[in-house]
Amino acid sequence: MEYYSKQISDLIGELSSLPGVGSKSAQRIAFHILNMPKDRASSLASAISNARENVKFCKTCFTLTDQDICPICSSNKRNKKVIMVVEDTRDLVAYEKVGKYEGVYHVLNGTMNPMQGIGPNDIRLKELFERLEGDVDEVIIATNSTTEGEATAMYITKLIKPTGIKVSRIASGVPVGGDLECIDEVTLLRALEGRKEL
Amino acid sequence: MEYYSKQISDLIGELSSLPGVGSKSAQRIAFHILNMPKDRASSLASAISNARENVKFCKTCFTLTDQDICPICSSNKRNKKVIMVVEDTRDLVAYEKVGKYEGVYHVLNGTMNPMQGIGPNDIRLKELFERLEGDVDEVIIATNSTTEGEATAMYITKLIKPTGIKVSRIASGVPVGGDLECIDEVTLLRALEGRKEL
Repeated sequence: MEYYSKQISDLIGELSSLPGVGSKSAQRIAFHILNMPKDRASSLASAISNARENVKFCKTCFTLTDQDICPICSSNKRNKKVIMVVEDTRDLVAYEKVGKYEGVYHVLNGTMNPMQGIGPNDIRLKELFERLEGDVDEVIIATNSTTEGEATAMYITKLIKPTGIKVSRIASGVPVGGDLECIDEVTLLRALEGRKEL
Repeated sequence: MEYYSKQISDLIGELSSLPGVGSKSAQRIAFHILNMPKDRASSLASAISNARENVKFCKTCFTLTDQDICPICSSNKRNKKVIMVVEDTRDLVAYEKVGKYEGVYHVLNGTMNPMQGIGPNDIRLKELFERLEGDVDEVIIATNSTTEGEATAMYITKLIKPTGIKVSRIASGVPVGGDLECIDEVTLLRALEGRKEL
């Protein structure tokens, strides 16, 4: 039996397909939407369709943007000779928020994951190597510190090394403010291996 | 500085205004939407606008429905002489899922909350008393067991008592499967007071 009228259960169904939204929160959000002023609900609906319709990949770095070339790639203040490779646009934004990185990015939009059948051709690797044919000094690999992220980093490193371009990997270790006793063993080992002389 | 293009940050802003969605989950949901097939994104958007446009209050019980009179109020299998008073449509659905209640409902769409300036005239109480002028045997008060829910229950009880209509309140006590040591003192006291002879 349907407990809610069709529109409400459609809405709950759509919402519960979103990541991190279970059936209870989908119900809560649905009732929040039903109690919104009509213009607020329609601005939410149009934000969804607008974003999906107009946002595309930057033709250079493949971040999500509303322009052909994203503001970072088209800025002449950024050093185009240094490319940071990240998994997705959120990672790019995380580094942009730091505000200290002056190079450009390359967004893979995924990582290699043989278990799920995602190979080197399914992420933006070919496009990265095309960019490296230009004038590039350094590639900084900033994929996540997960199995897939590390495997992708190793794969990229192996292919770039022979070209003579400098390749680096962001440091792995104890996060600032982190409490040693709460940190996993692999991270502790990495932090030890990556120690710096003072 | 804007880290995301306008459409993306609009979408993140709209999503993070939803209940239970913080800024990190809003980003995650936004990128999920950006990576959805276009027709899935537009069906999500239209579910939101459809629900908000077409769902209204039932003219009898004030539940949210797409018809003038909801299926429960218009069903001739339900006992119209027993009215269960609930706070919102979700509470009605919770009891409908149990499937044992054969009466009808009255949805207050809120509770009295003097601290927030919500008085008896701001919830559907007048409409409840209008219904009681008809042929009603019993009013079951099933507002939540919160301070506001209890206060609303007491207020309704006080007004109905003189009319001679039977008023009851759903039982308060230890939930089935509940572990005594994890249950708060007020609930334990209620369970003791409401004990039944076996």
